[in-house]
Amino acid sequence: MVKRGEVEFIDRLRHRVRLPASSGIVLGIGDDCAIFRPRDAVEDLLFTTDLLIEDVHFRRATHRPDDIGWKALARGLSDIAAMGGEPRFCLLSLALAPYCDRRWTDAFYRGLLRFGVPLAGGDVARAEKVTCDIVVAGAVPRREALRRDGAGVGDAIYVSGCLGGSALGLATRRGAAWKRHVHPEPRLKLGRVLREKLHATACMDISDGLSLDLHRLCKASGLAADISAPPIFPGATLEQALHGGEDYELLFTLPARTPVQRGLFRIGTMRNGRAGEVRLDGRPLPPLGYDHLR
Amino acid sequence: MVKRGEVEFIDRLRHRVRLPASSGIVLGIGDDCAIFRPRDAVEDLLFTTDLLIEDVHFRRATHRPDDIGWKALARGLSDIAAMGGEPRFCLLSLALAPYCDRRWTDAFYRGLLRFGVPLAGGDVARAEKVTCDIVVAGAVPRREALRRDGAGVGDAIYVSGCLGGSALGLATRRGAAWKRHVHPEPRLKLGRVLREKLHATACMDISDGLSLDLHRLCKASGLAADISAPPIFPGATLEQALHGGEDYELLFTLPARTPVQRGLFRIGTMRNGRAGEVRLDGRPLPPLGYDHLR
Repeated sequence: MVKRGEVEFIDRLRHRVRLPASSGIVLGIGDDCAIFRPRDAVEDLLFTTDLLIEDVHFRRATHRPDDIGWKALARGLSDIAAMGGEPRFCLLSLALAPYCDRRWTDAFYRGLLRFGVPLAGGDVARAEKVTCDIVVAGAVPRREALRRDGAGVGDAIYVSGCLGGSALGLATRRGAAWKRHVHPEPRLKLGRVLREKLHATACMDISDGLSLDLHRLCKASGLAADISAPPIFPGATLEQALHGGEDYELLFTLPARTPVQRGLFRIGTMRNGRAGEVRLDGRPLPPLGYDHLR
Repeated sequence: MVKRGEVEFIDRLRHRVRLPASSGIVLGIGDDCAIFRPRDAVEDLLFTTDLLIEDVHFRRATHRPDDIGWKALARGLSDIAAMGGEPRFCLLSLALAPYCDRRWTDAFYRGLLRFGVPLAGGDVARAEKVTCDIVVAGAVPRREALRRDGAGVGDAIYVSGCLGGSALGLATRRGAAWKRHVHPEPRLKLGRVLREKLHATACMDISDGLSLDLHRLCKASGLAADISAPPIFPGATLEQALHGGEDYELLFTLPARTPVQRGLFRIGTMRNGRAGEVRLDGRPLPPLGYDHLR
């Protein structure tokens, strides 16, 4: 076992990698997407990859193949939404397990293709467990991608919906919460509104739980945060709303007096302090969300 | 088990996918890379993904972590070479097995980063077996990417070096052949020469064996081919040279009278006939190379 979590792993890796300007990479490891600037182009391109592995991210007994295809792509689209981007195409590397027959693969691709994002290529192999890696490419006008590192002192912190639904669904496998778990809806429209209209100062998606993801946003912005309880998915606990992963709502910051539309929930304020420190109603909130290497 | 091979699987998938012009995808599923044309840019971008899975593509007992990192990226770079491209950046999705400690991951990334290609992002997870999916992005001047589908009747067929070395190395685990298997050298410089100077009419890399890869090139170009035996890696058999995978040499076609440099081997001629049909010294050569779904 790697004796440290994902945050440290990624920090170490980031410091090993050189990104010469000639590579076109404007933003590398550590945000929802990498940003690439093609020569002479009017748009920046966003790239994200997301693994979805049997018995790690889903189980054969509870997830239908079309659910798996849907979720594989939804995770990547949520990263594009978090940067205010518009999806352009995707690539899929898919390792098929021995039980994956033609019906399985047809259903899988049906789920994946339902979003209407062109599948431009990928790779295919056989393995013991189903393993998908989805790559999504998106586009934003040059220099306008939303990032995690732009929040300022006094900015208001928002979430785009109730949290904890996916964790509740995973626990109960029932009703609206289960649907939320298996069919998350990437917030692509909202991401664009945040970029174009509300001029969010920072943004990311809540994939690993509010406590961990807000910690990351704060760390990237070099600030701390004070929050109160977020809106909670009906039936979920406060714990699930704070630390449960895979809600795929957006977490973002706006200048304090920005008027916002309905359905967006202010949960707190960015402040000076130790970078990454989050307080809930005045008490330290540890980043207990889902750590992929814990 | 899927009751059909990879060629059919990919054919079926290709027919299911729509690629609207607005997506920017110029070439989708079925070549070494997808081609994406950014708006207003002077370059086309190439994208390829390659899976490398423990106990499918490598074994823990025989492959050191730096070899695995090297090979993961080399496979993708070979696809960029096959289109005449220049690598720009890569993304890596990596699932770590329980035995992967810090020494393992450090060595893995050392192998991967040795090529000097900037690592711009990716994903990380835990799984039972090490699973890597590498994404490589490359660039070529607009409309100049080499493809599989451009070979013409009478074009000469070439390979860029001796074949069968990787298959021999896998069997013997010794000497130059083993080195060829674990440390393949993507033919990036040659790919550029083929595009800029020799104006190759079609090109691909030999990753799954000459017999299968030439079948694919012929099928894509709607033609047949007549060849004689290719140059054979010292110690390898003709079978290994014809059907063994992972040599990562280039297979390409040139107008018949093109003068070529040393180190390129003419093995035959493109002809009219049933698309995909290959004859070796006048006899049918079945596509027996490595089929990832067989």
